[in-house]
Amino acid sequence: MNRKVIFYMLGQILQLEAAIMFIPLVTSLIYGEKCFLAFLITIFVALVLGFALTLINKSRDKTFFAKEGFVIVALSWVLLSAVGALPFVISGEIPNFIDAFFETVSGFTTTGATILGNVEVLSKSTLMWRSLTHWVGGMGILVLVVAILPTDSGRSIHIIRAEMPGHSVGKLTPKLRVMTKQLYLIYIVLTATEVVFLLFGGMPLFDSLVHSFGTAGTGGFGIKNDSIASYSPYLQWVITVFMLLFGINFNLYYLLLVGKLRSAVKSEELWTYICLFTGATALITYNIYSMSTNFAEALRNAAFQVSSIMTTTGYATADFNLWPGLSKGILFILMFIGACSGSTAGGLKISRVVLLFKRVKSGVKHMIHPRSTEAVRFESKKVDNDTLTGVLVYFAVYFICFISILFVVLFEPFDFETSISAVAACFNNVGPGLSLVGPMGNYGVFSYVSKIALSVAMLLGRLEIFPMLILFSPSVWKERRAKS
Amino acid sequence: MNRKVIFYMLGQILQLEAAIMFIPLVTSLIYGEKCFLAFLITIFVALVLGFALTLINKSRDKTFFAKEGFVIVALSWVLLSAVGALPFVISGEIPNFIDAFFETVSGFTTTGATILGNVEVLSKSTLMWRSLTHWVGGMGILVLVVAILPTDSGRSIHIIRAEMPGHSVGKLTPKLRVMTKQLYLIYIVLTATEVVFLLFGGMPLFDSLVHSFGTAGTGGFGIKNDSIASYSPYLQWVITVFMLLFGINFNLYYLLLVGKLRSAVKSEELWTYICLFTGATALITYNIYSMSTNFAEALRNAAFQVSSIMTTTGYATADFNLWPGLSKGILFILMFIGACSGSTAGGLKISRVVLLFKRVKSGVKHMIHPRSTEAVRFESKKVDNDTLTGVLVYFAVYFICFISILFVVLFEPFDFETSISAVAACFNNVGPGLSLVGPMGNYGVFSYVSKIALSVAMLLGRLEIFPMLILFSPSVWKERRAKS
Repeated sequence: MNRKVIFYMLGQILQLEAAIMFIPLVTSLIYGEKCFLAFLITIFVALVLGFALTLINKSRDKTFFAKEGFVIVALSWVLLSAVGALPFVISGEIPNFIDAFFETVSGFTTTGATILGNVEVLSKSTLMWRSLTHWVGGMGILVLVVAILPTDSGRSIHIIRAEMPGHSVGKLTPKLRVMTKQLYLIYIVLTATEVVFLLFGGMPLFDSLVHSFGTAGTGGFGIKNDSIASYSPYLQWVITVFMLLFGINFNLYYLLLVGKLRSAVKSEELWTYICLFTGATALITYNIYSMSTNFAEALRNAAFQVSSIMTTTGYATADFNLWPGLSKGILFILMFIGACSGSTAGGLKISRVVLLFKRVKSGVKHMIHPRSTEAVRFESKKVDNDTLTGVLVYFAVYFICFISILFVVLFEPFDFETSISAVAACFNNVGPGLSLVGPMGNYGVFSYVSKIALSVAMLLGRLEIFPMLILFSPSVWKERRAKS
Repeated sequence: MNRKVIFYMLGQILQLEAAIMFIPLVTSLIYGEKCFLAFLITIFVALVLGFALTLINKSRDKTFFAKEGFVIVALSWVLLSAVGALPFVISGEIPNFIDAFFETVSGFTTTGATILGNVEVLSKSTLMWRSLTHWVGGMGILVLVVAILPTDSGRSIHIIRAEMPGHSVGKLTPKLRVMTKQLYLIYIVLTATEVVFLLFGGMPLFDSLVHSFGTAGTGGFGIKNDSIASYSPYLQWVITVFMLLFGINFNLYYLLLVGKLRSAVKSEELWTYICLFTGATALITYNIYSMSTNFAEALRNAAFQVSSIMTTTGYATADFNLWPGLSKGILFILMFIGACSGSTAGGLKISRVVLLFKRVKSGVKHMIHPRSTEAVRFESKKVDNDTLTGVLVYFAVYFICFISILFVVLFEPFDFETSISAVAACFNNVGPGLSLVGPMGNYGVFSYVSKIALSVAMLLGRLEIFPMLILFSPSVWKERRAKS
């Protein structure tokens, strides 16, 4: 294990975080808010610590492999969140560090679960920082590092692989820096487009920026206690559509950009995504029709909530906790499926679920015709056995982690629905769950132990489990002693 | 596909069912009950239909392979339940056929879920029949066929494989008939021992027989509305212990019988089972202590419910639906794990869960040290890759089926906890779930569509999914046309 390169990368990431924090700093200056100092102190801390960490690696030794990649990703997300929590604590808006850490992890992992009962008392700059963590976390901060800082492309792939959401069926292009830059460009353009659409609907600039960051990262932090419910139907529809757009694999936008419209439109995952959205929206519209004033409202609320939950964003226009069992059940199932690979969304990802179905189907076929050798195909390509087994293993490890976190949270004196949906909502980076943690509730009710467990769940979900597991695996740390 | 051999086997099974039905027939004679006629008619129907089916295969062609094995098992369980439901309908005790079918499927699959709000109005012979279906279904009716009827051992393995619960890590002995006979012998001796222990505690003979059948098959049908709650602490402890004993892999008893005490005691699955039981009992005792009159009561109720749910029996001495979230959550998780392979219990089975953990662990290790080739070991043996992948596929197909059934049940106007726990309780052959289907509730509230879906869930759970999936797979039935 090359520890020096790990420190070096962590140092770079902290410096980048300091740079990003200038945005809320400027916000506090614009609105003349006193939390200016909190951001200034944090920026100072991040810069000094970051610089110190890079100094450890004087030899500029940048050799690293998959293992180091996992460790760098896991550690930097924890460190990012710990430092990112400081402005909340210093400004006194969230005085307790564990609460602030939960809130920041929730931000970076694009979960959007909050411990605050009343977000409307927060300062504008803090609200900006919360939403900005979504935007940065959505695409991945290490992807950003690779995109803008001079690093060795051949090695960086280990970091990108560990941080990128979704099961990568296609190979990553060798021109990694070019690719990541283009992905970020698409991300910026899409976000800006949403801002324009929201401004057009009469939403104030600050609100538009914050909600666009929250949508882009499929996060879900808002600025009002009733989330998006008090905005106009037009604005709600804009957010519905953009949540869906950010749930699509970004490679498809890239294909569009390079003129390969055909292959983009043929995507199996995209069509499954559209079908799931349409089906779920239709069923829920039917199910909540009698509770709504008219069909348009039922459809709008159904589409918004399905889009929000599928893409694991977590904005709400209705308290779906009060909906009938069918609607709640569908939303609960959608939390686990999530949206497309290579998007900013959480959950298992549709491509994995589709591959899981296909693998099971081929397994059953093989039982009936033991000598058949039909290969599983996905996105018009043969899928090799290692990939399929990888998906199966991911599914298993996913449920093992889910049950382990649930077990900790079960010690709370709450009903079973609260506990299981809280874990599902955090693990899948959704945000709101059911019962006490429904869209109108919050996570402030939990004990510190549960808040830490749920923070781990959010990190596990965002980093797709393995980096975190590897970080806590003793054999990663043992080996070095054996070698040196 | 050899359809003749399928008809032949189905015919034999129906005749066997007719033979078994003599027990409730005699019961009705002893107690002078008028449902005597219902059993007589059903026996007649089963014999005639069974004889007719065997006649189709005049050539006595008994060649069959894995595929036929699966189809025979799936069809015979459906047919058994359909015919087994007749006495309920004819006697008028459960006048609706779908209700009676649900109850009989619940019996044979050893689920113990009932649609009856008041079981105390049933006649003694019907109660006997309900519990007898547990006893027969627990070990497997096709295992019984192989044990007592002259069939080709070499082929029968396909049937046994399809019907035997649990992932078979060890190979089945080639002396299949001898083996199945010995298993049934162990089963009978254990059941008889329980009867003696119950009689010793002052339980009437009829009650002892019925409860021993229910315990042996890990079923859960009782004769009182409050299940086992009104019996003495001694009797409750006896049932606790015997539920646990029937949740152990029967191969271990076989090993004991042939004097291999050492290898029996070394079983990894057994120790995991004991640890899970002890841990869960300790946690629940602690959790419900404040609700109980004293420690002994808390421990007894915790141990009984854990034993009942783990072994997927479903008897109850307390309404665990009223317990705190931690206890309910633990019981909910235990429903999925189940007990040991090769026992009469349902669920995923402990060996599968252990293999799943080991496979995941080895996967993580492989990520850290890509060149390591450490094999997964279980029960002191290397586990090959096909077995491990098989477990992963089973886990995936298990959740896909679970979600599909849940989706149907969600259309009911009930709370989410009722729906999800009903599916979990039926799919894992437990019986009682939470909320409306808690130990003091029943499944009578569901619509016919849900009752059919839940019946399918019970069959999927008992037969470990694949036989049922293969039965409904078009390619099984298509192929014949292509060949002939």
